[in-house]
Amino acid sequence: MSSTQPKTYESIAPKRVAFLGLGVMGYPMAAHLLLSGHHVTVYNRTPAKAQAFLAEYGHTQRVKTATTPKAAAQGAEVVFCCVGNDHDLAQVILGDEGALNGMDPHTLLVDHTTASAQIARELFEHSIKAGIDFIDAPVSGGQAGAQNGLLTVMCGGKREAFELIRPLAMAFSKACTYMGDSGAGQLTKMVNQICIAGLVQALSEGIAFGMKAGLDMNVVLDVISKGAAQSWQMENRGKTMVADQFDFGFAVDWMRKDLNIVLQEAQKNGAKLPVTALVDQFYADVQDLGGKRWDTSSLIKRLT
Amino acid sequence: MSSTQPKTYESIAPKRVAFLGLGVMGYPMAAHLLLSGHHVTVYNRTPAKAQAFLAEYGHTQRVKTATTPKAAAQGAEVVFCCVGNDHDLAQVILGDEGALNGMDPHTLLVDHTTASAQIARELFEHSIKAGIDFIDAPVSGGQAGAQNGLLTVMCGGKREAFELIRPLAMAFSKACTYMGDSGAGQLTKMVNQICIAGLVQALSEGIAFGMKAGLDMNVVLDVISKGAAQSWQMENRGKTMVADQFDFGFAVDWMRKDLNIVLQEAQKNGAKLPVTALVDQFYADVQDLGGKRWDTSSLIKRLT
Repeated sequence: MSSTQPKTYESIAPKRVAFLGLGVMGYPMAAHLLLSGHHVTVYNRTPAKAQAFLAEYGHTQRVKTATTPKAAAQGAEVVFCCVGNDHDLAQVILGDEGALNGMDPHTLLVDHTTASAQIARELFEHSIKAGIDFIDAPVSGGQAGAQNGLLTVMCGGKREAFELIRPLAMAFSKACTYMGDSGAGQLTKMVNQICIAGLVQALSEGIAFGMKAGLDMNVVLDVISKGAAQSWQMENRGKTMVADQFDFGFAVDWMRKDLNIVLQEAQKNGAKLPVTALVDQFYADVQDLGGKRWDTSSLIKRLT
Repeated sequence: MSSTQPKTYESIAPKRVAFLGLGVMGYPMAAHLLLSGHHVTVYNRTPAKAQAFLAEYGHTQRVKTATTPKAAAQGAEVVFCCVGNDHDLAQVILGDEGALNGMDPHTLLVDHTTASAQIARELFEHSIKAGIDFIDAPVSGGQAGAQNGLLTVMCGGKREAFELIRPLAMAFSKACTYMGDSGAGQLTKMVNQICIAGLVQALSEGIAFGMKAGLDMNVVLDVISKGAAQSWQMENRGKTMVADQFDFGFAVDWMRKDLNIVLQEAQKNGAKLPVTALVDQFYADVQDLGGKRWDTSSLIKRLT
């Protein structure tokens, strides 16, 4: 079912945790928590995924499924969450059957969804009133990072709460860093997505130009990746862009969701994002070309 | 005078070479050719720089100065050139006192100027008529790369001629690669500059956004440079951008010169460069802010 790759886990005392949301990210993240020794109760809006998780990992005797977030959260010391967007998040955490209604005081709630800083702060306030600490903890590294347990986790909230969840989050990450007060994790993820958006467009323009100029772009990419034009995107996406391959990676629909969050935050804080806003519109073109599920590097499809 | 750093040179038979243009790039490049064992005759439009070169390296007994490109080229087996732009290049190579009028048949002419593909092809044709092989060989790596002898050289022209000049060019480079027919070196450099322009703008938007959001941007850059937003620019310019330092590196005026070449070539080959064109205009804003000599990372100054 999953492609979760076991890794060497830090040895920590087993906890009772819940994981809400078994999507392409959540499923392997929950699996790493389980494989590192914890007891995991899983919940997913579509129950079949929770059943699949139980079928794959039930032999450990440490997996349970729950039919509501509230039920999953009952008895958990830490509740992890990774869902689609602000709206899903409010439902899963704040709804009548949401996690907060099931959690005990003095427990921890960790959200890995890429969401707005505002919802992060709202969830923080709701949690504090219930005696629960909330950490906004969006991740980068994509599906491969989740499967290999090598995500980067960016955390906002109280530092003491961060220190408690860090050893657990290391089960599925290579770095888990405290970024500041509630919302700072989400804001850091926004900076990440801003840097990627314009960068991928620049790489697309460079490759499309080189192809029109008749250059052997595989050689060109090898040469220029030795210098000041180098980027992770160039090294990991350049040649698949030249080969017109986009059926993998981080989907355009998700990138537009993230850029929408970014552009709304920029409306509030006054940051100027002329190229980010333009690239968001270019991604709308890619969606129209049939590329909703294509990797973000498909920006080049508008140019070739 | 110079900050040329000696390096370990490949051992090759000493040649008589000329170097035309002792700017911030040409001066250390000529010095590396000299230090690797060749006899070097230098020419510079402003004679004081040639005199300075003689003063610094005359003790080797292998330096001469010349007062015209033609005089410098006489007797040289290979003539290297690194000047400002297409116009300077035409003067230095094709003028009455230009290099081609002094060169013997069966010698080699190598141009390291970042220039248009069109002038490269014109110089190639003029050279061929005189029985001389011409290689367009723009470099990347900047002033530091030139000083440390670690440039990347992108070559266009006949492959046999490239094979002859590669061992000499390795005196000032870490990589010297054949990219294709005449003009292919310049076109490769254009791809490089396209990739950098939009990338630096994306990085600028990300950092400016993060600063407005109140994040500790040095921590943010450490975290996100571990993932898909990573770039040479982020690792080498991110923290100086946060610190508002731009008095080094590759100047905005030079970048606009290069982007002008890029945009003219795109007019010819039909490549679409929406973000590159926009960033060129943003650099015009930076010039107006007093940033003609600032590093290209100063794009962020428009946003903060």
